[in-house]
Amino acid sequence: MKNLLVASTSTIHGGSYLEYILPALSDHFGNTDDVIFIPFARPGGISHDEYTEKASDAFRSIGKELRGLHTFTDPIKAIAEAGGLFTGGGNTFVLVNALHRLELMAPLREAIFLGTPYLGTSAGSNICGISMQTTNDMPIVYPPSFKTLGAVPFNINPHYLDPDPNSTHMGETRETRIMEFHSQNSIPVVGLREGSWLDVKGDVITLVGKLSARIFLKDKTPYEIESGTVIDSL
Amino acid sequence: MKNLLVASTSTIHGGSYLEYILPALSDHFGNTDDVIFIPFARPGGISHDEYTEKASDAFRSIGKELRGLHTFTDPIKAIAEAGGLFTGGGNTFVLVNALHRLELMAPLREAIFLGTPYLGTSAGSNICGISMQTTNDMPIVYPPSFKTLGAVPFNINPHYLDPDPNSTHMGETRETRIMEFHSQNSIPVVGLREGSWLDVKGDVITLVGKLSARIFLKDKTPYEIESGTVIDSL
Repeated sequence: MKNLLVASTSTIHGGSYLEYILPALSDHFGNTDDVIFIPFARPGGISHDEYTEKASDAFRSIGKELRGLHTFTDPIKAIAEAGGLFTGGGNTFVLVNALHRLELMAPLREAIFLGTPYLGTSAGSNICGISMQTTNDMPIVYPPSFKTLGAVPFNINPHYLDPDPNSTHMGETRETRIMEFHSQNSIPVVGLREGSWLDVKGDVITLVGKLSARIFLKDKTPYEIESGTVIDSL
Repeated sequence: MKNLLVASTSTIHGGSYLEYILPALSDHFGNTDDVIFIPFARPGGISHDEYTEKASDAFRSIGKELRGLHTFTDPIKAIAEAGGLFTGGGNTFVLVNALHRLELMAPLREAIFLGTPYLGTSAGSNICGISMQTTNDMPIVYPPSFKTLGAVPFNINPHYLDPDPNSTHMGETRETRIMEFHSQNSIPVVGLREGSWLDVKGDVITLVGKLSARIFLKDKTPYEIESGTVIDSL
């Protein structure tokens, strides 16, 4: 049975890395001491080692050691045998490019569908959707495909941001961008605000956190769902 | 001799479409009544006809009629014979996808290098760079390549936006995104604020408009250039 936490962000304003979600992680990874970290999204271009160290620091506070997937000679085997998986945020193009080129997308999907506890934040959540096409990131590398894990039957827009009524900036709002996505695609999109996450247990997907989320369906007016809502048909 | 206006945006806050740049356009397209509009970026998903009509409305105020490239049976010939070319903004992925799939990137580049006056706004400016990889847009379609016209020897970031010191949002700032681009690429990037444009005459590229622009070079601290600066080596 699938068992994922799909979080909008690793960090909320005023908090430290993963701080706001640590109690949930302690529970989510409660049955394993063997969590593998996937550092490929490289936020700000940091190295795999640096990023793994940063994530490990946070996990140590709940008594877990992380090992970086990049340190394994056989990453496919490592994913299959992992007790838990965590994909951190950064640049979604860099992450998806690495996963496709290393042929890790299918093994990762298989582990998730077999029930390995998974945590994604930001780019690591984006890849839980059907495609990465509602990322906010810059296309700094050209991946072989935009297809992602399909662990949830919709796309994620992490760091969802409401339009600023006082803005004088003429660039597209996030809502406009997602509506442009729907001019070309029919996949539903869940806009997850920072501090929210989806708890996925099998096919039951529940919105968790203090904030509502915004649902975008092709040719429909976007609408809000409250925390605690089970997203069962989009 | 190349002859381009590469504008950050079509519209500045409080103004109508193209209004702020119409005096320059009147001069730029002064020698032709035959300007072709490339509507493929489809802002908000609007149709090619609708978008061409919107752009034509603005051009009529300087006594020019536009014809949409989509209305020609032989768009390659149309580009080669055009007296002027204007590519409007919208979604850069949609625009670049269309130009590659219709095999129009090379003809467009040839016309520009032969001196056909060109105007780009937003996505239409993004494609003047070496690649579209510093676009702000969502990857709503998968183009065959991110390579673009290379009409200027750097990349453009249109709608450049300074970090907001009061923001509580944890998504990456524009500057962070461009620095991530430079973790993977060495192409210089010019961040063009709304209301700025580049005037390209042969190899002389001048920043025009009231605002400064921000220059990003790999492994260097970003810096500002003032309006009027000739960008001659990056």
